Amino acid sequence: MERDDSRIQHQGLKDLVVSADVAASWIQDGMTLGLSGFTRAGDVKALPHALVERAKTEPFKVDVFTGASLGSDVDKIFAEAGILRKRLPFQADVTMRRKMNEGEFHFVDQHLSHTSEMLRANTLDQIDIAIIEAIAVTEDGEIIPTTSIGNSLAFAQNADEIIIEINLAQTKDLQGVHDLYAPGKQGERQPIPLTKPEDRIGTQGIPVDMSKVKGIVFTNQADSPSNIVPPDEETNMIADHLINFLKQEVEVGRLTKSLAPLQSGIGSVANAVFHGLLESDFEDLKVYSEVLQDSVFDLLDAGKVTFASGCSITLSDEKMKEVFGNFDKYKDQLILRPQEISNHPEVIRRLGLISINTALEMDIYGNVNSTHVRGTKMMNGIGGSGDFARNARLGIFVTKSIAKDGKISSIVPMVSHVDHTEHDVDVLVTEQGYADLRGLAPRQRVELIINNCAHPMYRDQLREYFQEALTRGGHTPHVLEKALSWHTQYEKEGTMQQLVAIEA
Amino acid sequence: MERDDSRIQHQGLKDLVVSADVAASWIQDGMTLGLSGFTRAGDVKALPHALVERAKTEPFKVDVFTGASLGSDVDKIFAEAGILRKRLPFQADVTMRRKMNEGEFHFVDQHLSHTSEMLRANTLDQIDIAIIEAIAVTEDGEIIPTTSIGNSLAFAQNADEIIIEINLAQTKDLQGVHDLYAPGKQGERQPIPLTKPEDRIGTQGIPVDMSKVKGIVFTNQADSPSNIVPPDEETNMIADHLINFLKQEVEVGRLTKSLAPLQSGIGSVANAVFHGLLESDFEDLKVYSEVLQDSVFDLLDAGKVTFASGCSITLSDEKMKEVFGNFDKYKDQLILRPQEISNHPEVIRRLGLISINTALEMDIYGNVNSTHVRGTKMMNGIGGSGDFARNARLGIFVTKSIAKDGKISSIVPMVSHVDHTEHDVDVLVTEQGYADLRGLAPRQRVELIINNCAHPMYRDQLREYFQEALTRGGHTPHVLEKALSWHTQYEKEGTMQQLVAIEA
Ligand SMILES: CC(C)(COP(=O)(O)OP(=O)(O)OC[C@H]1O[C@@H](n2cnc3c(N)ncnc32)[C@H](O)[C@@H]1OP(=O)(O)O)[C@@H](O)C(=O)NCCC(=O)NCCS
Ligand SMILES: CC(C)(COP(=O)(O)OP(=O)(O)OC[C@H]1O[C@@H](n2cnc3c(N)ncnc32)[C@H](O)[C@@H]1OP(=O)(O)O)[C@@H](O)C(=O)NCCC(=O)NCCS
Repeated sequence: MERDDSRIQHQGLKDLVVSADVAASWIQDGMTLGLSGFTRAGDVKALPHALVERAKTEPFKVDVFTGASLGSDVDKIFAEAGILRKRLPFQADVTMRRKMNEGEFHFVDQHLSHTSEMLRANTLDQIDIAIIEAIAVTEDGEIIPTTSIGNSLAFAQNADEIIIEINLAQTKDLQGVHDLYAPGKQGERQPIPLTKPEDRIGTQGIPVDMSKVKGIVFTNQADSPSNIVPPDEETNMIADHLINFLKQEVEVGRLTKSLAPLQSGIGSVANAVFHGLLESDFEDLKVYSEVLQDSVFDLLDAGKVTFASGCSITLSDEKMKEVFGNFDKYKDQLILRPQEISNHPEVIRRLGLISINTALEMDIYGNVNSTHVRGTKMMNGIGGSGDFARNARLGIFVTKSIAKDGKISSIVPMVSHVDHTEHDVDVLVTEQGYADLRGLAPRQRVELIINNCAHPMYRDQLREYFQEALTRGGHTPHVLEKALSWHTQYEKEGTMQQLVAIEA
Repeated sequence: MERDDSRIQHQGLKDLVVSADVAASWIQDGMTLGLSGFTRAGDVKALPHALVERAKTEPFKVDVFTGASLGSDVDKIFAEAGILRKRLPFQADVTMRRKMNEGEFHFVDQHLSHTSEMLRANTLDQIDIAIIEAIAVTEDGEIIPTTSIGNSLAFAQNADEIIIEINLAQTKDLQGVHDLYAPGKQGERQPIPLTKPEDRIGTQGIPVDMSKVKGIVFTNQADSPSNIVPPDEETNMIADHLINFLKQEVEVGRLTKSLAPLQSGIGSVANAVFHGLLESDFEDLKVYSEVLQDSVFDLLDAGKVTFASGCSITLSDEKMKEVFGNFDKYKDQLILRPQEISNHPEVIRRLGLISINTALEMDIYGNVNSTHVRGTKMMNGIGGSGDFARNARLGIFVTKSIAKDGKISSIVPMVSHVDHTEHDVDVLVTEQGYADLRGLAPRQRVELIINNCAHPMYRDQLREYFQEALTRGGHTPHVLEKALSWHTQYEKEGTMQQLVAIEA
């Protein structure tokens, strides 16, 4: 095992260096593990792989808590090895998704700002071992995280024991970019003293009781690159509509040219929107988000964005080399925070974010499903979308108006699962246009959503549903026995189209 | 018209006193009005009645924004007179409910902490005239509210003109109980400096630009008393289960004997729970809620509660005489705040409230419907329940397990409308027991909810649904074509019972 003792500055800890196999052997059946890692960045790599090796000869099950999704195939191999009992609060792996939809293990889908709070309040299982990727351990006993912070602070503070995985592939230049702050217990805490995205309020590392450190493992493996799909015609159109909406808000005087701090979910639409900002008239923009993707760095390079706060840096292969090869260039313009702070309602509401997240489907009244395919099968999880949409100045949801070559309409009579209620959804955007729902009653939203967001091939069907619903009356009219029939029809016939005609 | 000029201390305003009829004549077709009033307390009384008189001879329509529901039959007569175009953010009147479910006017159902924010950001219609009940106008130009604050601060600050209704029936002793604080624009504001329920952070009155005051009307009419249904066997059982749950939390060390600041919705269950606290071992309790009901004053009298913060005081006839006849006794233990502050996510999360609200129905996965009967007909509105449940330390929802003599199960396979997603619902309580859902995956919650909360007469039916759903798989298993069939069956057959047998 390659090791670099200059990364361990704290007295006494050097003796604790062990191999990943040895560290993995400490993990016992039934334990709860808190792993660093958020959206493929800053996850521990050597130990999880060693753990899966061990599972080949020895049966055991563990609960795995993380920041969000992991890279390095960890969620995949954990799921395949069958070593999971419970997983939370988010994942995004195809294999894991399949296994959990089959009920092989329990997945607890949480608002990403809530996990740390629950650990602090002792309402989730106690963390037996926190396993945290680091660039170094400082002389005064702080763990310096790598490309994400996620829940690592809460894991380290609430765990019985800590294993540190020092990753030599992560640039030491990251030191100084982190800002670790824990709000303290509810009822005893002070306001979070953050009023601007660029405010530093904490320490550069995770302060830990070093007597809890059980071992240190070395690894040398880069983060998994992001798997962003390049923009296509539709995502570019979504971006254009969204930018037009924002321009409109500037014109009527609700926003200035520097808008408001921007949050955006991961993925191709988010990337397309941020790309669109490059060519826009907006200026002096700031980002206050979870994940910082390629486009944030393009915007920093272009001088469009002057500061970006996030809780992880998740980049493509190419961009990773560029950014981490020259990190000093960005250091004054970046802060990484715990996800509890990047996603904290207090801060999101205070700053008045513009928040852009992706929906699977939306209904004619503005309710949004971000997680459950046809109400049952989990995609990834709600992530931070609820933290943001509820508290942002503008809760914007984007999606393509159709999926599966038009066999699925993403605008339906009633969503098959609700993650974001009509109260939290301000603006919907598809490649067809945008619907600004603020201050409108349910019946007022319908025509706007159908006209501006639904695909033309589904507009008449949606109107027919609404007309029939109107004959039943109510504040939010529905034909209950047909409300989910588009979904059941898709399961039976393979398409949502012509449903009305078929049923009639 | 009775008048008392000692209530108008500000220079020059005395000349502005007019009759309610004259003031009503200023209101023009198409205007947006911001009326004081929250849960039957502190609503303007003379002017709305004069306005309805005027409507007998002259057709016009207005938008009416308030704090929450109004007393004095105002919502009823507004609805009957047909003068409404839009109403927000909450109501609780039978006639109004019927008319809006028939689509006669638009109702916008909002989180109660959001309305002020939207007015400040200029994303709702501009308020033409704010009409605010007061005990007095001070020398330095502050309007002193009466028994509620609601959205009055935001209305006064964002209106073009202000009409003040001085109510001589409201005790002057209320002066000093209010604490008016507005957070400022998003992006420019500081943290809300409130860390304890008893913290005073603002002014005693609503500071207004006196040149905006167009008129002053005098009235002399008490608030409408609350219409609480007395506790019955079921509400007492719900209260017992809930208190047992809280005791349990103390035993395992998550709470102390003084619990955490309590919030509770209005109604008989809330009152029963608070009554139960009287005989409990808990001590030195604090209330941080919206509405302060009779039971809060009983708890203050008994020394169980040492401080109560709310945004309105809504009492029964008898209690009103007792409390307002002797208000000095309570003054040091009470604060009334704007609903933006009583319901602010920042404060709720910081204080770590225990939040108790009522559901219409809940599903086997923990989603809650608080507003829409059978997914379509609005009862009252979401009120503050979303502000509280999302951000509280404990988001607790209570309901009786059955309604309409058992023809309706309040635990259903899938709620017909979602106000609170599974992510925001920690504990469910019915007269059958409680289900603590924290940290559980959807499939883990089902048996707990069925066993502990569902009525015995519906348990087998629920289990059968779940068993069939399991054969379809998924993270949240459902039989989509039957998910809402309990509701449609009720509409057709008048009962949810035996649905499985009937369909089979
Ligand atoms: C909603 C979400 C799954 C969309 O992801 P995406 O990758 O941008 O979306 P895509 O359009 O590529 O769709 C993903 C898949 O869902 C399918 N899909 C899209 N809409 C669908 C619908 N209405 N019904 C069924 N399937 C649908 C697509 O066809 C695609 O299927 P495939 O993987 O078999 O090709 C994702 O954004 C997410 O997990 N969001 C929730 C968490 C979140 O918002 N995080 C960010 C802020 S913290
Ligand atoms: C949910 C809510 C309507 C319950 O009110 P409540 O008066 O305590 O409840 P009740 O048990 O008396 O039920 C009210 C009515 O709904 C009916 N009802 C109850 N459960 C039902 C169900 N599952 N399906 C259909 N009807 C139902 C009752 O039969 C009763 O009908 P009736 O008026 O014809 O007699 C009320 O608490 C509310 O509006 N909540 C939302 C706002 C809120 O939480 N505010 C407080 C915090 S801010």
